[in-house]
Amino acid sequence: MKQVYLDNHSGTKVDGRVYEVMLPYLKDYYGNAQSMHSFGTKSAEAIQKARQQVASLINANENEIYFTSCGSESNNLAIKGVADAYKTKGKHIIISCIEHFSVLYSAKRLEQTGFQVAQLPVDKYGLVSPNDLKNLIRSDTILISIQHANPEIGTIQLIEELSKIAKEKGILFHTDAIATAGTIPVDVTKLGVDLLSLAGSQFYGPSGTSALYIKKGVRIIPQIDGGIQESGRRAGTENVPAIIGLGKACEIAKQEIAENNKKILALRNRFINELPKKIDYIYLNGHPEKRLPNNVNFSVEFIEGEGMLLFLDEKGIYITSGSACTSKALKMSHILAAIKVDAAIAQGSVTMTLSKYNTNENIDYVLKEFPPIVHKLRELSPLYAYFQKTGKRQEAGPGTDYAHHHDEQTEE
Amino acid sequence: MKQVYLDNHSGTKVDGRVYEVMLPYLKDYYGNAQSMHSFGTKSAEAIQKARQQVASLINANENEIYFTSCGSESNNLAIKGVADAYKTKGKHIIISCIEHFSVLYSAKRLEQTGFQVAQLPVDKYGLVSPNDLKNLIRSDTILISIQHANPEIGTIQLIEELSKIAKEKGILFHTDAIATAGTIPVDVTKLGVDLLSLAGSQFYGPSGTSALYIKKGVRIIPQIDGGIQESGRRAGTENVPAIIGLGKACEIAKQEIAENNKKILALRNRFINELPKKIDYIYLNGHPEKRLPNNVNFSVEFIEGEGMLLFLDEKGIYITSGSACTSKALKMSHILAAIKVDAAIAQGSVTMTLSKYNTNENIDYVLKEFPPIVHKLRELSPLYAYFQKTGKRQEAGPGTDYAHHHDEQTEE
Repeated sequence: MKQVYLDNHSGTKVDGRVYEVMLPYLKDYYGNAQSMHSFGTKSAEAIQKARQQVASLINANENEIYFTSCGSESNNLAIKGVADAYKTKGKHIIISCIEHFSVLYSAKRLEQTGFQVAQLPVDKYGLVSPNDLKNLIRSDTILISIQHANPEIGTIQLIEELSKIAKEKGILFHTDAIATAGTIPVDVTKLGVDLLSLAGSQFYGPSGTSALYIKKGVRIIPQIDGGIQESGRRAGTENVPAIIGLGKACEIAKQEIAENNKKILALRNRFINELPKKIDYIYLNGHPEKRLPNNVNFSVEFIEGEGMLLFLDEKGIYITSGSACTSKALKMSHILAAIKVDAAIAQGSVTMTLSKYNTNENIDYVLKEFPPIVHKLRELSPLYAYFQKTGKRQEAGPGTDYAHHHDEQTEE
Repeated sequence: MKQVYLDNHSGTKVDGRVYEVMLPYLKDYYGNAQSMHSFGTKSAEAIQKARQQVASLINANENEIYFTSCGSESNNLAIKGVADAYKTKGKHIIISCIEHFSVLYSAKRLEQTGFQVAQLPVDKYGLVSPNDLKNLIRSDTILISIQHANPEIGTIQLIEELSKIAKEKGILFHTDAIATAGTIPVDVTKLGVDLLSLAGSQFYGPSGTSALYIKKGVRIIPQIDGGIQESGRRAGTENVPAIIGLGKACEIAKQEIAENNKKILALRNRFINELPKKIDYIYLNGHPEKRLPNNVNFSVEFIEGEGMLLFLDEKGIYITSGSACTSKALKMSHILAAIKVDAAIAQGSVTMTLSKYNTNENIDYVLKEFPPIVHKLRELSPLYAYFQKTGKRQEAGPGTDYAHHHDEQTEE
């Protein structure tokens, strides 16, 4: 069976060159980077090289790069670590309402310890307004966290403009660049950010590691306490093979982003241009131009995302409905709610994220297989039958709550 | 050059069988375990199998196993997660004074938020006394954390007896079993513990993952917030290859622990029996019987551990002085201080930890190369010259502070 993987935001295939540099450290060079003997030094040196490669990708200094275990950990460390370090200065934090759950729930956790968190709204394209940010800033605001781009709807924020407002007020600025670093050019100096999270699993690197950029001079309290790894800011034995893989992925990305995106954008635009010709009542979510080159998000009216996923899966086409971390939660995406997609329509939303491994043949195949699935599902849909009969849309039913999927689970 | 790796507590060579099961998930099966499509389900199923393998090693239920990124994270989650969940019940915690830094500094972090932490002393062998534990318990004690065995001096605690005291008082009991799980038999039911940390990098599994056993019914607050992974108790995309590797390492350990230890113990005892015959003024630290089968720790008087390490390194012999996480900190081990090793003598301490890959030829080689290094270093030692001349020992000088190596670094 054909297989077309279009869920690259949930994780990319590791580049063969990344894989190759990891293997020796998985198999033969298992020295602990903190050990004093030369076998350990070999690991320490490899980590240092990776640190330089990561720094180089985002125009940072290698001493500003801290390795953690995953993007969620980097976001937790950024939000909670800064909050802990600056809480005597103030206890007010601003985030956008379309952040990843690791930012949203880190902020929620802080609210339990006396912090106040303000959520910035977004417009219908998912963009934060600089004026809204100005209005939310208070004298006790210590941190602003706004994601660089949203992985679900692809919208890229005007970070330079937003971070400038923060800088003028002396407030630290963090951006979750997990959807952008390695995918589009990211430069911490141009962006003007104090902290930035990135993850190699988004750009052909391995899972199991992530990096947090922390600008020189920014204080942070570790969230994993213990040994002196990562200059005392993140304890725990380093995952050497994964770190080396992340470094290599950064090196490759730096060289090949432009070339990859030329190809990916052309493929992506085929979806955006051709799917609406084959399927009616289908709506593109996210910004038409300020958008990740690899992202497509459509709401397909009258049917549910889950059904499309399952039928596409039978055809070997792998996509997602909602974000990677919530797809199993089966709740309405808080992102689509924020851009005010009608709840009934939002249920039929799908995200397709492309990679450099996708081909024109992949797109042909999806364009061929997807429309009949939509038509089949609509034939089974009472909403569609009602619309066909009356020309009217039914009101959204109950059960469209969203974004609090795990409150019930954290303290079981 | 010959190479003899005797720093297995800092990390073991990955078993070839573990390596082989990891590779497909590093290369070909990169689906996100949270994705709804069948490519993601493949990862989810592999994780579930690993969860069963981990559970089986320690006689737990698979739903009681939670994956984290490293042993330090598991210890942080156990200590801080339980403290956060039960703080309305009480804010008193008991740990031993020879815990790993990830337990010690997690407890210190809690002290900053109003918790009180009592440290249990140990005897000259490193053993905690059940009576001492009884005496430290208060009505507001919510958690006791005592490591199963100490990786530096090898001493194995009487966990069954200690956990029984906790249970009688209705206090949760955590044990850091990172030095024992996969190395000696570990059974959570027999040990009577509520939480237990283990790490595959100690027993031929990969780095980059660890497991925390949390007994059914024990509440815990996540320390990394975000998605719904690990039943909402640890957010972040799963490190699938590492988790699969940990599972396989557990499966292998369960089958082969007894056989491995028969061999390792014989090798280890050659060090304990033969080194003192070749080197005078050398003292074994830790318990003579209640001891990890793979651990040797000697204090070699009149010289410094660092010098021995470097000269042994030139011969391709890799050992450590102090624990893995502190070897670069170059401070006196808090473990040796706790068992009241004289500060001057403690400076000449070395830890050798064996693995199933070590051979009798390895031991022959070390027994041949080690004594001349000690003799050479002693010839350069003013302490030894003074002793030779006067028959007396000099007092320990300044600079023997210990165990606060990273206080200065956490908030830079």
